[in-house]
Amino acid sequence: MKDERKEISRRDVLIGAGKVAAGAAIVSVGVASFVSNGKASGTTVYPYKKLDIDEVARIAHETYFTKFCAETTLTGLFKPLTVSVGGPYTSFPLNSVFWAHGGLMGWGTACGTLIGAGMAVGLITAGDSTKVTTPGGRAPVAVGEAIINDVIAFYANENLPQYKPAAGQAKYEVKNQSVSDTPICHISVGKWMEKEDVKFFGIERKERCARLSADIAMYTAKLLNEWADGTYKPRNEPLANALDNQITSQGNCGDCHGDNIPTAKGA
Amino acid sequence: MKDERKEISRRDVLIGAGKVAAGAAIVSVGVASFVSNGKASGTTVYPYKKLDIDEVARIAHETYFTKFCAETTLTGLFKPLTVSVGGPYTSFPLNSVFWAHGGLMGWGTACGTLIGAGMAVGLITAGDSTKVTTPGGRAPVAVGEAIINDVIAFYANENLPQYKPAAGQAKYEVKNQSVSDTPICHISVGKWMEKEDVKFFGIERKERCARLSADIAMYTAKLLNEWADGTYKPRNEPLANALDNQITSQGNCGDCHGDNIPTAKGA
Repeated sequence: MKDERKEISRRDVLIGAGKVAAGAAIVSVGVASFVSNGKASGTTVYPYKKLDIDEVARIAHETYFTKFCAETTLTGLFKPLTVSVGGPYTSFPLNSVFWAHGGLMGWGTACGTLIGAGMAVGLITAGDSTKVTTPGGRAPVAVGEAIINDVIAFYANENLPQYKPAAGQAKYEVKNQSVSDTPICHISVGKWMEKEDVKFFGIERKERCARLSADIAMYTAKLLNEWADGTYKPRNEPLANALDNQITSQGNCGDCHGDNIPTAKGA
Repeated sequence: MKDERKEISRRDVLIGAGKVAAGAAIVSVGVASFVSNGKASGTTVYPYKKLDIDEVARIAHETYFTKFCAETTLTGLFKPLTVSVGGPYTSFPLNSVFWAHGGLMGWGTACGTLIGAGMAVGLITAGDSTKVTTPGGRAPVAVGEAIINDVIAFYANENLPQYKPAAGQAKYEVKNQSVSDTPICHISVGKWMEKEDVKFFGIERKERCARLSADIAMYTAKLLNEWADGTYKPRNEPLANALDNQITSQGNCGDCHGDNIPTAKGA
């Protein structure tokens, strides 16, 4: 899809020889206009103010038990902004993303935490058309896309859950972490349930998903804070699997195809 | 999850013996307050005015080629509302959902059309807490959730694409339809590519996804129009597979598990 992307690279202008001065100026103006200092900015509908990562995690964990994965992740990110920024955050209906729970109304597709996080990043960075060059240097993408792609890769590649609630806040002491190797709810939660030896409809699994919601909300806030500081650099290559496999896809082909992995036309 | 849901049923009050009069009154008040007659309603942030389904489809199809699946579906639904309602739709950043293309940045999870449609339905129905009883009568859900679940089921169960662009608007004459049996982008597009014998990165596949975006936007608008009229009734049972299989899941277990379908703890 390289032909459809404008070849402007934030990473190039930040670190490329001979382009530093111009790049720094562009980035400075770009970020300043999206970050609020307590008053609404005229350049974006959803101005951003750096988040306290621990507060984001605490809210996401505690809200999970009534709102589930998608809404709780969005709540962890947006609730502090209703205080620090106000404006559009105070009237934003957080339950507008409730339906994404359980991989979209229980269909087990993309984990709802990623839809909640995606909605937050999408709204906050919507006005920033800066393109960033990615580690593999294949196809520059808008900075918000790179951030969301990094959040998805974190979900797929890390041992989760990592978040430990404060004393008295856990409803169950989670024993195991697992690597999902995919953003798919069904596979992610299934691998963890098997390791923990618990059923889906129980407080054990809910506590796991509450902690995982905190993890995703925290990591999203961390990357958004870097974006606000002008220091964000993509960790992962967007669209790498899609381009390599010549079809939208992940790196875990064997999870579904076993040893019989087909070759797509054009691959 | 039945214990977490309030047992108020719109379907019961609409069709249940002895409850018709009271039910009709509740539904009438509930819907009227969310539907705009050209001026903003005080009860919701995103008032709705019935959409012209053909206009929605035309916009979704033509916008696909620059904005991809998620943003184009949202654009098909929201662009006409910028004219008929105005208000929050004129300032809403449609590109805030761009990242969901290709099943979330090309990861091939949930089809992006469903994220675009979900965001639209979620925002429009966020203030309507009416619970609807579903065909299986298992767990009443908020009306917006039932609508989104029906859109997902339509995506999974129908022969798609169905939309035929007006003369001169098609970039390729699509020959085949396919049933995805899942909301997963990778499987859905893979089944169609195999049938059509075309590659992913080509205008043939793009035309298919453009038409499918029109299909999903149209069907979403049809259900939202029924909701606005107070005639919407859920077609499908939300969470049926999750409850039957005791894990978030779909009905196409064999697509990934082959003949070796595991039994979840508690199932």
